[in-house]
Amino acid sequence: MRALALDGIVRFRADYPKPSPSGTDVLVRVLTAGVCETDLQLIKGYMGYRGVLGHEFVGVAENGPLAGRRVVGEINCACGACDLCARELPTHCVNRTVLGIANHDGAFADYLVVPQRNLHPVPDPMPTEIAVFTEPVAAAFQILVQLNVARTDRVIVLGDGRLGNLCAQVLARVAADTLVIGKHPEKLALLQRLGIRTALLAEAPTDRRADVVVECTGSESGLPAAISLVRPRGTIVLKTTVAGTQTMPWASFVIDEITLIGSRCGPFDRALVALEHGEVDVRPLIQERLPLERGVDALNLATQRLKVLLTVNEG
Amino acid sequence: MRALALDGIVRFRADYPKPSPSGTDVLVRVLTAGVCETDLQLIKGYMGYRGVLGHEFVGVAENGPLAGRRVVGEINCACGACDLCARELPTHCVNRTVLGIANHDGAFADYLVVPQRNLHPVPDPMPTEIAVFTEPVAAAFQILVQLNVARTDRVIVLGDGRLGNLCAQVLARVAADTLVIGKHPEKLALLQRLGIRTALLAEAPTDRRADVVVECTGSESGLPAAISLVRPRGTIVLKTTVAGTQTMPWASFVIDEITLIGSRCGPFDRALVALEHGEVDVRPLIQERLPLERGVDALNLATQRLKVLLTVNEG
Repeated sequence: MRALALDGIVRFRADYPKPSPSGTDVLVRVLTAGVCETDLQLIKGYMGYRGVLGHEFVGVAENGPLAGRRVVGEINCACGACDLCARELPTHCVNRTVLGIANHDGAFADYLVVPQRNLHPVPDPMPTEIAVFTEPVAAAFQILVQLNVARTDRVIVLGDGRLGNLCAQVLARVAADTLVIGKHPEKLALLQRLGIRTALLAEAPTDRRADVVVECTGSESGLPAAISLVRPRGTIVLKTTVAGTQTMPWASFVIDEITLIGSRCGPFDRALVALEHGEVDVRPLIQERLPLERGVDALNLATQRLKVLLTVNEG
Repeated sequence: MRALALDGIVRFRADYPKPSPSGTDVLVRVLTAGVCETDLQLIKGYMGYRGVLGHEFVGVAENGPLAGRRVVGEINCACGACDLCARELPTHCVNRTVLGIANHDGAFADYLVVPQRNLHPVPDPMPTEIAVFTEPVAAAFQILVQLNVARTDRVIVLGDGRLGNLCAQVLARVAADTLVIGKHPEKLALLQRLGIRTALLAEAPTDRRADVVVECTGSESGLPAAISLVRPRGTIVLKTTVAGTQTMPWASFVIDEITLIGSRCGPFDRALVALEHGEVDVRPLIQERLPLERGVDALNLATQRLKVLLTVNEG
């Protein structure tokens, strides 16, 4: 089958072995997949991943109870037996594989294999290009799973990229005073059109007044910026993973009693409802559509553009 | 008056100007003061402080409603007018001075000036040497103000020093499975005698299973160690301030959805109750008593010993 595989470098391959499902796994024929910042970090060496990239996808289940239906899939494949699975934290299973991220071939291919319990059917009226945002929209909703954001909270989202945009849309519906700080006027303009307040980094407020700062920059400067913006006893939510280390002063966390919350994968059911009801507008984020064969170009483009989609198979 | 003052280096001075209270401030004649890790960090340049050191003290109020009584004092002197004071966060007042830490002469002296509202009377039967622990015991209780620790939580306290000891005593009464990890067998032995489980760092568990890790080492290696011990979705409480910067990988916070909570000053009323009822046993921590004139020696000793007290005036 065709696949975009990482093995030190990323290559399009026409002859990648087609996977075959075992047990309760489901073979999924991929329709469309989305490129995410994590894919770009993996290419830089994050996690030391080798295999097919891609974890945002819509496909058609080839077997199992959802056979013939369009599906989206949660990315963490849990063992169901470890301590953390027993605590109902399957996304933190110690034996987990992660689609396209850790020991599990991903969705930038004609087919991938996904555990049955990870799959969610896509509502029939929902276009595939909308449903492909389920995974990142779920990641945005994870903030609300972990943190009680109040209507009156002053929220700042740092970063105007793919994830920053989605987090801002989710948070702005909860907290009226949500501000996105970014570096790209054209990306900020998309948020302004949705009625969300924005500021260029150079013009951002310098007084420390935010109750919640959500770090979505994927940059090493993001966390220090977040510290400079959050109020004492405020909360920083760390959404983006940065490969490598970060050097920063620590005393602020103690002196200002700041809470830092790392936040990763979120609730697919909530994300599908939000997409179905138009709570989140993902269409303006789609800036490129490329066929799987042009996957390497797609990954390069994704360093500059918002969402780049790979069109893999016809529905 | 006599004072131990920091001005690049620490010096005992016999001729330091005696302060005079204004407004609702109270002149406090110091009886006993305790040396804290923060004092040692200030000497290393933390906060760039210049002035009389010392923020753990028992004294006698010379004026105001508590005149003639023994008192302890909260260390943050708030303006009462700023945004954070309005939010009832006086310990985070943007205009605050901090006794012996920021723009306010401290307690390693014959006298200091403290705002009336910062003072708490010491219960008559409580020995001065017990009451002098109110400030650090309050700091330990602050963990329970910020975090809901469950009876079944697995708690690890990193650090067997002054603050680690007190945090462990406070937490062990809430969570039966509390373990202190330290480097000093003799300091760990004090905790064992109180029925608290301990481990030497070299023999500490290496599996990541703690629900809560409290970092009290005051060392740059403390936070990376905490990350290696906390479970996914667990909480690290950062108690000690470290001067300078820290370099560490960031991805763990996001991948494991770890929460980090900076924690500083706590409730004096709760600490006084705990000391009165013997919930916390502070006597074994007192390892040296030196007169104020030997303050420089006391500060040197405090780098090795648990609590070093400065005896300043007779009661």
